[in-house]
Amino acid sequence: MINTLLLPELREMLAEQNAAEMSEFCNSLHPARIAEFMEGLTAEECWQVLQHADANRRAEIISYFDRDKQVELVGTQDRDQVAELLSDLPPDDRVDMLDEVHNDVVDDLLSRMPTEDRRDIMRLRQYPEGTAGSVMTTEFAKLRESLTVREALAEIGRQAGQLETIYYLYIVDEDDHLRGLVSARQLVASMSKPDKKLSDLMETDLISANVMEDQEQVAHKVARLDLLAIPVVDQEYRMLGIVTHDDVLDVMREEATEDAHRFGAVDPLDESYLKTQILTLCWKRGVWLGLLFFFALLTAFALEAYDERLETWVWLVPFIPLVISSGGNSGSQSATLIITALTQKHITLGDWARVVRRELMMGLILGGSLALFGFGVAALFAPSLRDATVIPITLLLVVLTGTLSGSLLPLIFKRFGLDPAMMSNPFVAGIVDILGILIYLNVALLILNP
Amino acid sequence: MINTLLLPELREMLAEQNAAEMSEFCNSLHPARIAEFMEGLTAEECWQVLQHADANRRAEIISYFDRDKQVELVGTQDRDQVAELLSDLPPDDRVDMLDEVHNDVVDDLLSRMPTEDRRDIMRLRQYPEGTAGSVMTTEFAKLRESLTVREALAEIGRQAGQLETIYYLYIVDEDDHLRGLVSARQLVASMSKPDKKLSDLMETDLISANVMEDQEQVAHKVARLDLLAIPVVDQEYRMLGIVTHDDVLDVMREEATEDAHRFGAVDPLDESYLKTQILTLCWKRGVWLGLLFFFALLTAFALEAYDERLETWVWLVPFIPLVISSGGNSGSQSATLIITALTQKHITLGDWARVVRRELMMGLILGGSLALFGFGVAALFAPSLRDATVIPITLLLVVLTGTLSGSLLPLIFKRFGLDPAMMSNPFVAGIVDILGILIYLNVALLILNP
Repeated sequence: MINTLLLPELREMLAEQNAAEMSEFCNSLHPARIAEFMEGLTAEECWQVLQHADANRRAEIISYFDRDKQVELVGTQDRDQVAELLSDLPPDDRVDMLDEVHNDVVDDLLSRMPTEDRRDIMRLRQYPEGTAGSVMTTEFAKLRESLTVREALAEIGRQAGQLETIYYLYIVDEDDHLRGLVSARQLVASMSKPDKKLSDLMETDLISANVMEDQEQVAHKVARLDLLAIPVVDQEYRMLGIVTHDDVLDVMREEATEDAHRFGAVDPLDESYLKTQILTLCWKRGVWLGLLFFFALLTAFALEAYDERLETWVWLVPFIPLVISSGGNSGSQSATLIITALTQKHITLGDWARVVRRELMMGLILGGSLALFGFGVAALFAPSLRDATVIPITLLLVVLTGTLSGSLLPLIFKRFGLDPAMMSNPFVAGIVDILGILIYLNVALLILNP
Repeated sequence: MINTLLLPELREMLAEQNAAEMSEFCNSLHPARIAEFMEGLTAEECWQVLQHADANRRAEIISYFDRDKQVELVGTQDRDQVAELLSDLPPDDRVDMLDEVHNDVVDDLLSRMPTEDRRDIMRLRQYPEGTAGSVMTTEFAKLRESLTVREALAEIGRQAGQLETIYYLYIVDEDDHLRGLVSARQLVASMSKPDKKLSDLMETDLISANVMEDQEQVAHKVARLDLLAIPVVDQEYRMLGIVTHDDVLDVMREEATEDAHRFGAVDPLDESYLKTQILTLCWKRGVWLGLLFFFALLTAFALEAYDERLETWVWLVPFIPLVISSGGNSGSQSATLIITALTQKHITLGDWARVVRRELMMGLILGGSLALFGFGVAALFAPSLRDATVIPITLLLVVLTGTLSGSLLPLIFKRFGLDPAMMSNPFVAGIVDILGILIYLNVALLILNP
């Protein structure tokens, strides 16, 4: 869905080298819109157009480009200019970008950057993926508690130009230990008392994140408390950076995708679908597919064991898929409901008895309804109505097995400290398949073999 | 996971009616922590403790309670005090709360509130669920463009006490038409030019949302542009409120859960699992379970049609679940990958040829591997090695069918303007099941019946 509305005009400006129009284009609209209009241009063309924006605006527009185009720009354009651009980008964004650029290029670019920026990038690059440190930015408003409201406002006025955000002002001591927090709102609301000290204004019971903490945990903290940003500290409570609300949104989205992949029996991808290599994808699918194949093999062996019976009761065979899918589907429904309720903290382990009661009820209602239909169909194929009862009885039992395993397995996983999303739907379905076949064959033995 | 750490102490304070300690508890910690420590108390007990906090703090703490406890408080405690509390809560939160309270109680509470708050609540309650209007708050910083930086700062200082957030200051004309936006950061950074007019400072190319716009669309706008809030306007571009980053996070989470439910063949729930009535849950599951049952019936009829053949080739029967699950699982893997890539905009419809090529490749690799294993097992059961080839050939074809249907069906849905998540995995699996059985039987006919 590339926005091609202004593409002809942009290409014309470029062909004519019309500096006035390109400069106007770069400065007229919201940077995000400008980035959108440039989606159809090559990285090279974008770079040429952006020559007509001032450095700050250029950085802002580029920050809305998609990651591929950013990486291409960084990798191919004039190194000195790119180094300058990197200095203007938010610290967390540029580190993410450089992660995808060849190391030689990164080294060259770093050597062209001011010492402070270079150190900052190298520091951020050292935090392992998935930690708070890997998503934090190092630009935040930092003040001393001895300042008055008036002094603080003046200081923030000076810092504001360089900062992405000033909604929270962090109070640190001379060794950068985090001491407290004043919101911009509080500061502005206190302007009528300009001599008040920040130490009297600041909140000291702070919610913070450790730099090595799992990014998902950090995201949940921020979300639960509706924070705009959370301070990131080291073991000594020295303030290193902040994780902002937009990074939290990204983490949440990443996590939702990972869960969706697990639900679909795919090991979560590290990159987007098209960027992941086919063999990597095959591996991430193959592991699960292999496991589920193994489950299905067990089902095959179970059926094999009843080979001779099936030869006599061949009318049972067409119902095998019906039995299996009824159990598997009701099982994955229950697993989905319970896993999402667990991750959203709508239920806890303590609710297990209530969950089981509800799933039992639902199993009876849903299984009962399928059993009714199933009996109707079975009556057409079975030698007698009595024989036909195998199907409804099996369906009821299999759906019950599905709802109970689907709800209990995630709870059991959770109980043992494992991620319940690991107990993905197809896994539940695989287990319910085997149980379903065993139930089917045994019900048949009981009823047909008196 | 109720936090019971301070529960005994709190109960003791209540028994002793120790006002000093309760007041200290209410004012000592972050409101979110206080709410956490009170999780184990009843609504009645919470209310008693909170009598010792001032009105603002009380509202802040209560805003971190879970919805059930909030609703219970509102429904059971002293009406005048509750009305006062509601006036102190953010406009969007209190409307959400009142949505779950009985209408008689709401009317009574409204009659006890100041006219302005009452009108505000009644206005917000009229927007249908799922619209921008239903999640917006009406508290935002509003300024005239004729103000200077100095005047604006003073004005914001006055408004800040009432406002949740002041990171964006909205510039409106006398009829509340949205004219522009100044960020708090810009304002503070311009303090050195106190006589500059807001009209010279403000950004005028604004991203806004219509009050009736779908909340998911609004959330995506905010997320894509890393905004802290988005202004909500009516048809005449009159500013009505803002949707803030925390509401966006909630919308995103809601949406992720809906998608997860669809993936698991459950119609998305309107409420949490435990709060949804059993019969509603049965309905939301039954619709899909019934549809999938119907698919499985088709499979049964297909098998029934080959009844006599199966009697001769009874060794084929145990492999039925294996064939079905291999196709279904590889199909739902592909569907999951393509649906998540589509919702994340990692692929567009234009990529269909690339997607098909990739899925074809993966189908060959994964299907080929399963075929190898399958051949080994089939060799044990089949009358001859030649006969055994039915299994690997079927497995390869079925997995290919799975990957191709799993990837193409969501793309086709999208092409016709439908939500690709509707093409949920079990639906794909249902279709692949039938195709799988047909492939199996026809491969068998070809090879075993020369």
